[in-house]
Amino acid sequence: MRIEVKDAADFLRAHDNYLILMHSSPDGDTLGCGYALCGALQRMGKKARAVCPDDIPKKFDYLKEAVKEQNFETDNIICVDIADTKLLGKMKEIGDKAALCIDHHISNTEYAERLLLKADYASAAEIVFEVIKELMVPVDKILADCIYTGVSTDTGCFKYSNTTAKAHKTAAELMELGADFARINYVMFDLKTQGRIKLERTALSNIHYYAGGHIAVITVTKELISDIPDIDSDVVGALSALSRQIEGVDIGICFKEKEDGIFKASLRSSEKINVSEIAAKFGGGGHKRAAGCSFSCPLEEAEKDLVEKCAEAIKNAGIIS
Amino acid sequence: MRIEVKDAADFLRAHDNYLILMHSSPDGDTLGCGYALCGALQRMGKKARAVCPDDIPKKFDYLKEAVKEQNFETDNIICVDIADTKLLGKMKEIGDKAALCIDHHISNTEYAERLLLKADYASAAEIVFEVIKELMVPVDKILADCIYTGVSTDTGCFKYSNTTAKAHKTAAELMELGADFARINYVMFDLKTQGRIKLERTALSNIHYYAGGHIAVITVTKELISDIPDIDSDVVGALSALSRQIEGVDIGICFKEKEDGIFKASLRSSEKINVSEIAAKFGGGGHKRAAGCSFSCPLEEAEKDLVEKCAEAIKNAGIIS
Repeated sequence: MRIEVKDAADFLRAHDNYLILMHSSPDGDTLGCGYALCGALQRMGKKARAVCPDDIPKKFDYLKEAVKEQNFETDNIICVDIADTKLLGKMKEIGDKAALCIDHHISNTEYAERLLLKADYASAAEIVFEVIKELMVPVDKILADCIYTGVSTDTGCFKYSNTTAKAHKTAAELMELGADFARINYVMFDLKTQGRIKLERTALSNIHYYAGGHIAVITVTKELISDIPDIDSDVVGALSALSRQIEGVDIGICFKEKEDGIFKASLRSSEKINVSEIAAKFGGGGHKRAAGCSFSCPLEEAEKDLVEKCAEAIKNAGIIS
Repeated sequence: MRIEVKDAADFLRAHDNYLILMHSSPDGDTLGCGYALCGALQRMGKKARAVCPDDIPKKFDYLKEAVKEQNFETDNIICVDIADTKLLGKMKEIGDKAALCIDHHISNTEYAERLLLKADYASAAEIVFEVIKELMVPVDKILADCIYTGVSTDTGCFKYSNTTAKAHKTAAELMELGADFARINYVMFDLKTQGRIKLERTALSNIHYYAGGHIAVITVTKELISDIPDIDSDVVGALSALSRQIEGVDIGICFKEKEDGIFKASLRSSEKINVSEIAAKFGGGGHKRAAGCSFSCPLEEAEKDLVEKCAEAIKNAGIIS
């Protein structure tokens, strides 16, 4: 059942003992939503707990200050920023019993009993913010930090095309509520571990260019990562993005070797190219400008096959003849 | 004479034939202000021209679409985002005759006949936006692009501590006016030339750590840059920032060799350290967290002397014993 902000607040007021689920490979939006909502419910005198199927990267530790540890038996399950319970990994079965889902993904599978979906929002955190305001819970500095983290991380610090005027207005409001935005943005976007510096350096040293510089390939091998203790998962995302940021590049590819020797390719493209179509040729998929697929053959072969299809797409788009 | 937005608009309406000066080593704020104001005055039927003492990096070319080339004899000089006419280089003497200055730097030397100063604004572009609205000139997409560029670049895309709630509200307004924010942010923050990739790679390969990793030094030699044709000046700024972004680093130093063999050091620090005090010991200066000084001795000696003073500051701050 599709519901509105007011209905979600009515539901939350009427019930208690909430287990809030955040998706696996957690990002700033699911975590910001989870801890903000959990903290707000606790401030109302409700029992609530926010959990994630995966370990939460240390850089997000400050979000946990919004909540207290509480022990209780769960009565109601809430999913935040989760389009599909598949994204819950080992907690999928718990998610399938969700009484409420708050989300901003148009692809939401409507698995929850009640769905508060705003697909035109840049982040789910903006919806959670509206729910908290509807619940009349005062948004203190720590709750503002959580919500700001969701908005800022999901928009690439207001840089990406999914940023909305509304996201900016929400950020302004959260700053006025005391959100420690400069510190949050520093930790989320600027702080780099020595391991990450090393990985970036090595990756930058081994870029392969094809099709007259319109295709760039970066490879992250198992060996390279095993050598670096403190790499977190979003570094590979950053490297995929980097390959596309090089001037003249229309398709950026980042190959990452997985534990089992499979190579996962992340593709990013300029507006001229639809990489989801290319990924589909290899059994993968995704969005027009960000897609992925996997290869179980040796890297050289995978790179040759993928680059060949990319070069065709670049020709078909009239970028090269 | 200090004036308000309304006075600036009255002045602009009452006069004509404007030469708008933008500062040397131009950034997105001075250029965004210059072209937005010039375009707005032209749309009012006034004659106006925006000029900069230095070449304008190609990535800013889209701002020029806001204006038409006009030939006329200058009657009135306007300075935008210029705290001191020293920042005008070879155009200093022209700036000294300014009838109007629009600026947001608290350090403004009040050189202009009329000064519209809002030191609590994150960018001068926000003030220019207010002036244009006061002039009742409709802000079209191209003017919005110019103003957005000023706000976004001066706040590091809303990332840095100088970002205000007002800057976010202005960004929201400009997006609603059609500003091509995603494209602008891509060009300003993400796009990297192959030369820049090469420079970053080399710089990352040669980081020197001191004081248990609390000091990081990156060096950009003349030789390194001469090898890379398309480096623009803000790359060195990015490298200074990078040195400080490494986990555990409290002082980041970037040495850059100038044409004459002098080494210019840029210092960035965490909130625990005041680098302007350190720079002052070597005849330099700046802000608490971003300062600079120059060395005419060999690099090894400069690095040793500067690191010694930095290590002292780190000890004095109680970071290491």
